[in-house]
Amino acid sequence: MLNVKALYTAYEKGELKAIPVKLQGWVKTNRNNGTIGFIEFNDGSAFKGVQIVYEKNKIDNFAEVDKYRTGAALEVYGKVVLTPEMKQPFEVHADKVVLVGDVAEDYPLQKKRHTPEFLREIAHLRPRTNTHTALFRLRSELSYALHKYLYDHEFVYVHTPIITGNDAEGAGNVFNVVTDHKDPNFFFGKEASLTVSGQLHVESFALTFGKVYTFGPTFRAEESNTTRHAAEFWMLEPELAFTDLNGNMDSIEEIIKYSVAYVLEKCPDEIDFFTKFYDKTLKDRLEALVKSKVLRITYTKAVEILKEAQQKGVKFQFDNIFWGMDLASEHERYLCEVYTNGPVFVTDYPKDIKAFYMRLNDDGKTVAACDLLVPGVGELVGGSQREDRYDVLKAKMIEGGNLEDLEWYLDLRKYGGVPHSGYGIGFDRLLMYLTGVQNIRDVQPYARVFGSIKY
Amino acid sequence: MLNVKALYTAYEKGELKAIPVKLQGWVKTNRNNGTIGFIEFNDGSAFKGVQIVYEKNKIDNFAEVDKYRTGAALEVYGKVVLTPEMKQPFEVHADKVVLVGDVAEDYPLQKKRHTPEFLREIAHLRPRTNTHTALFRLRSELSYALHKYLYDHEFVYVHTPIITGNDAEGAGNVFNVVTDHKDPNFFFGKEASLTVSGQLHVESFALTFGKVYTFGPTFRAEESNTTRHAAEFWMLEPELAFTDLNGNMDSIEEIIKYSVAYVLEKCPDEIDFFTKFYDKTLKDRLEALVKSKVLRITYTKAVEILKEAQQKGVKFQFDNIFWGMDLASEHERYLCEVYTNGPVFVTDYPKDIKAFYMRLNDDGKTVAACDLLVPGVGELVGGSQREDRYDVLKAKMIEGGNLEDLEWYLDLRKYGGVPHSGYGIGFDRLLMYLTGVQNIRDVQPYARVFGSIKY
Repeated sequence: MLNVKALYTAYEKGELKAIPVKLQGWVKTNRNNGTIGFIEFNDGSAFKGVQIVYEKNKIDNFAEVDKYRTGAALEVYGKVVLTPEMKQPFEVHADKVVLVGDVAEDYPLQKKRHTPEFLREIAHLRPRTNTHTALFRLRSELSYALHKYLYDHEFVYVHTPIITGNDAEGAGNVFNVVTDHKDPNFFFGKEASLTVSGQLHVESFALTFGKVYTFGPTFRAEESNTTRHAAEFWMLEPELAFTDLNGNMDSIEEIIKYSVAYVLEKCPDEIDFFTKFYDKTLKDRLEALVKSKVLRITYTKAVEILKEAQQKGVKFQFDNIFWGMDLASEHERYLCEVYTNGPVFVTDYPKDIKAFYMRLNDDGKTVAACDLLVPGVGELVGGSQREDRYDVLKAKMIEGGNLEDLEWYLDLRKYGGVPHSGYGIGFDRLLMYLTGVQNIRDVQPYARVFGSIKY
Repeated sequence: MLNVKALYTAYEKGELKAIPVKLQGWVKTNRNNGTIGFIEFNDGSAFKGVQIVYEKNKIDNFAEVDKYRTGAALEVYGKVVLTPEMKQPFEVHADKVVLVGDVAEDYPLQKKRHTPEFLREIAHLRPRTNTHTALFRLRSELSYALHKYLYDHEFVYVHTPIITGNDAEGAGNVFNVVTDHKDPNFFFGKEASLTVSGQLHVESFALTFGKVYTFGPTFRAEESNTTRHAAEFWMLEPELAFTDLNGNMDSIEEIIKYSVAYVLEKCPDEIDFFTKFYDKTLKDRLEALVKSKVLRITYTKAVEILKEAQQKGVKFQFDNIFWGMDLASEHERYLCEVYTNGPVFVTDYPKDIKAFYMRLNDDGKTVAACDLLVPGVGELVGGSQREDRYDVLKAKMIEGGNLEDLEWYLDLRKYGGVPHSGYGIGFDRLLMYLTGVQNIRDVQPYARVFGSIKY
């Protein structure tokens, strides 16, 4: 059976003919003048729909079709008609229109603009809006692009566990996993929580397969209500053996450019939509990224840049800029939105503000970390070369108090360890970057945030 | 840089030449006679390794290389030498061998057979064994095959939530998600649990995109220690609009055959390995499946078959066979291992033993469900046509007591609902079926089961 996408594909190849078709989908709008009617019709196969034309003297249920409302499900039998003189390149002239599923009159999605807040309350219906149809198709295409890139580059996909007895980053703010048993540790015999990162678990696989990745949901119980944080979010975490920090940044740059180029190619209509309605600079920005060489500056240099900016009169809310500070969101955005006006890697952060597993540099003060900052979003990717020296890592783990829990992780440096690096891409943030949509609640199928869980 | 896989690929094309190579990987075995040595070497890019030949009068650190043990990480510079007269088609003659990561003497993976029980205790090292290298590469290939099939067939991938406020099947045995706050419902404002299925959440997307799927971890807090159940396991759940039970079975049959054929093509060495060491019939069984037409029998017929078998003297542990009973594992296995000796669909189960969302058949007693049973595993896929009639579903939900929680799900029948169907493939069980490995603990990177969570 043909679908709308197949018709557009045939049209673009110059192969579309006046063929009979059967289509199954939903009414976007329906209007008529008493003798001829027009249904904007979409079956979900493409962002663009197709116009169904129905005439009183050609179908035997004109009076009923007249009443089919926005949201009704139809089966349409008809014929493709090329319309080179019209805005749309072709339409379907109906021979028969069958109502498959009616829509109640209180259907919340009427033909008008709805606020994001309203749509979040009807997360089971909002995929039907243009914004969310576009968002969730991009989400799917982006997932596939990442899987495909990694597969084609011989990375092995590892399903790291969601429930964990180890807390990777020692970050606090974790969700605990319990059963109805009165002892919360009954089921697993010890405290169990939802993973904040699959990195530690995937590292052991890098030491067999060389290149691996994990891609799945991760969790933080952050009691905050920002537009960029959710309690549940997807992370892509590749890990590369025999790779240093520079090789790591090469990999990050390549996969980001590949996936952006992939989406630009596969979803031009969706990207045009977001460029028109969400961010006028979007398409240009994405096309520029694909062609650019991402600049790499050290944290030390970044602090100098921020100080110089301050001396030139730039105002920061956190105005105490000093070496050793954590970069605030406004600092990150200054670096990529003003200083480079494009994506930039910041490398070699002070060891005290980064995780225990990052490799200590020869200066004894910084670690081989890299964050990719992008305009509009800030930190999109965080990565590092991992500490591969047994003694150095062990000392850090004793200091951090996680040696007992993670002795297996230290083992990886004892048994054929190698220099290795990896990174984490916040998948939802990448999707925000790709669309210009500003709230993480809108790019997730059913967002999980503090204070709310309707679905 | 070349890797071992690239060498085999070039060899199979007849293009491998005596080129210089640099390889990075690990020692499987190392032996020498004082003047010439042989390292079985693997870099994880292929199941097969390559033999590194090192000679006393060609490298300057023969005495050190002599000591490199199983598990040590090396960088090898050398030259490819074709060896048509030998068992292996080529080897690498070393010019230089560099130790990248030494291995401690207490390395648990010595060259001998280890029990699965022992290997589960060292889940961070077992990917290095032949069995687990093969298993986890197959796991990755199988994941990709499923994603690729669905993408090529225009399914949209939806990340349904892991933390949920709805309990899809009303199954009990769920894990609860809490924080350290004294009120367990503090974070989300109501009880939250780990999902047992993404089906209900993905259905709403099918009513926009037509064909969708979710693929991710699901959870059951089952306090049992069987070889086929884990607390955390991956499920693939496609959902198809405008599709009835027969179309659903067509889809199941096609995707299973596609993914089995894909793995047979991409991983011949791994399949040979499992056929040799785990299940002598494996390769034949898989090749037969790809070519077969899967039989479809009703539950009512299945019960007749089991009764007849009993009359002919077959002994079942659960010997009270009657219409209305749930099929036990032994019954399922009789049907697919003895009666059909191959995969079989059982359809149209009694409504009382199936979930509320399955479509009631016209007989008023059975529902449009289908289970795919396969030899060696039992139930591999479960699916159904969904109840799309508002009034029928509403009555069932009132009866089941989940109307209040799932009113949004009922909405999908009110606003442009259509006949739709879907299924769930237990990914870990599919991998067991593909390898002949009998314990789910061995096919998961870090298994999550009752009573244990070391990692």
